[in-house]
Amino acid sequence: MSGAHQSETGGLFTEVDHIAIAVNDLDAAVAFYEETFGARVVHRETVASDGVEEALLAVADSYVQLLTPTSDESTVARFLSQRGEGLHHVGFRVEDCAKALQAAHDAGVRTIDQTPRPGSRGTTVAFIHPKSAFGTLIELVQE
Amino acid sequence: MSGAHQSETGGLFTEVDHIAIAVNDLDAAVAFYEETFGARVVHRETVASDGVEEALLAVADSYVQLLTPTSDESTVARFLSQRGEGLHHVGFRVEDCAKALQAAHDAGVRTIDQTPRPGSRGTTVAFIHPKSAFGTLIELVQE
Repeated sequence: MSGAHQSETGGLFTEVDHIAIAVNDLDAAVAFYEETFGARVVHRETVASDGVEEALLAVADSYVQLLTPTSDESTVARFLSQRGEGLHHVGFRVEDCAKALQAAHDAGVRTIDQTPRPGSRGTTVAFIHPKSAFGTLIELVQE
Repeated sequence: MSGAHQSETGGLFTEVDHIAIAVNDLDAAVAFYEETFGARVVHRETVASDGVEEALLAVADSYVQLLTPTSDESTVARFLSQRGEGLHHVGFRVEDCAKALQAAHDAGVRTIDQTPRPGSRGTTVAFIHPKSAFGTLIELVQE
């Protein structure tokens, strides 16, 4: 099995872009990953339109995206009050967000975004609805 | 930003090994990823000791790990009944599971496994307790 995955493909998914984790205290969560495992923050950004601040820790070609709300109305604030801290969504990197979103629509999959929109760090993104994806909030990310 | 992550390191984490998703119907969830996005199953295994059956879909050097319980007593069965389908845990690949687990213990982090144990597909694994990791169940995976 070892190494077998390297010659396989994920179809439209070219990489795990990020694993998003909702936390109450961004600095404390960053410190946990840095001090325990030696991970490093490579990007930090406030996304006003989503009401979140994020810190990205690099893991190979993927990221751990720590998210905390900057507004009580953000979906991440609602998530934290309803479910507590933890895994929030997964981002899969794609070559072409519009094409991947179209593939979802063609398959009858319900999406949150009907067209691609700007994400953090200059990406183009679209979200798949968790009700159409076995409970998982999936983000399609084009760098 | 683009490409910057490729020269960065995740410290003890060499790769996102897998994103684990708990589902009620393994075949239906596999079909969703295959038919919508063209992902492919590269491994399937029942782990009797954990009371789960898993299917691994390859995404670059990482996996989407779809998990379903084979026993009502499994932690995944409890998770599904309490929280429903969705993101269950994240596995980070490490060179040496014992060394990474020791780093966690040295940092005062609570772990579920006190020593590394066999995981699926011949790996050696240990779990970090979510209460010590901002609500995230983290698996350390040595291939």
